[in-house]
Amino acid sequence: MSAPELHPDVEPLRALLGTWAGPGSGSYPTIEPFEYLEEITFGHVGKPFLAYGQKTRDATSGLPLHAETGYWRPAGPGRLEVVLSHPSGLLELQLGTIEAGASGGGAVIDLRSSTVVGTPTAKPVTEVHRRFELSDDGQAITYDLSMAAMGLPMTHHLHAVLRRQG
Amino acid sequence: MSAPELHPDVEPLRALLGTWAGPGSGSYPTIEPFEYLEEITFGHVGKPFLAYGQKTRDATSGLPLHAETGYWRPAGPGRLEVVLSHPSGLLELQLGTIEAGASGGGAVIDLRSSTVVGTPTAKPVTEVHRRFELSDDGQAITYDLSMAAMGLPMTHHLHAVLRRQG
Repeated sequence: MSAPELHPDVEPLRALLGTWAGPGSGSYPTIEPFEYLEEITFGHVGKPFLAYGQKTRDATSGLPLHAETGYWRPAGPGRLEVVLSHPSGLLELQLGTIEAGASGGGAVIDLRSSTVVGTPTAKPVTEVHRRFELSDDGQAITYDLSMAAMGLPMTHHLHAVLRRQG
Repeated sequence: MSAPELHPDVEPLRALLGTWAGPGSGSYPTIEPFEYLEEITFGHVGKPFLAYGQKTRDATSGLPLHAETGYWRPAGPGRLEVVLSHPSGLLELQLGTIEAGASGGGAVIDLRSSTVVGTPTAKPVTEVHRRFELSDDGQAITYDLSMAAMGLPMTHHLHAVLRRQG
């Protein structure tokens, strides 16, 4: 099958399409700091959303660490809705914005959880803030995540710099 | 990379691993009945969950209809937690059971939503019931989904019979 045309609603996210990979580092007051390798993908099927997947691996052993999967839905000019599932038993509903970068190029995507729900065996996470910054040349995404979890207030957890692949 | 061993917690779900495909039919009081082709996949990375993905296409045009993605987590003997994201802006947290089929072979998996959350632009769904029946020979999954949506009570929505691929 030939690739469908991008749905016009998703045009503001076109620069994200493809696969991105790079190193990241994580920390949180309840755990030891760690280094990881991350890969994220954004795909589309011609409908008004992007399919999103993320996987991380331990930087030393290469073993799988985290993963998440879901969809990004433009919801009017500059607005974005994101739904995510985690294998740890969490569901995130994120609402946010897409803006041009400070220099007028690139993009800044800011997402804040409106709802976080966990299964009975999931660790308690109450709030998540995600920020993606696409570089002016469209070749790099810098990514930061903060969360309120394990009874702690919002605290920085993850930082990664991903390069466009292929 | 060689395939990792299945995590022991996921052993009760081993028979689901792989790709399944087949025809289905959908109906709901608010829409015209429709026929579709469905494909679902269950994968693992050696951790205590299965990654789940589903896609449907129109039976006539082949164009994409629905999709969903998430994770299945065993949560103690015969218990299952499922987290799912939908491109329509829905998140489902499902809790349920895995039992042997009536004849002692196969399996019956019964999942009921404990939480359904939608983005501001999602259609209103308040409750979902999913039932998967794995045939005694492990080669077919029969799948039914009922939901309470658009202000209606629980109503049957989808029925499909999927065959193991490859």
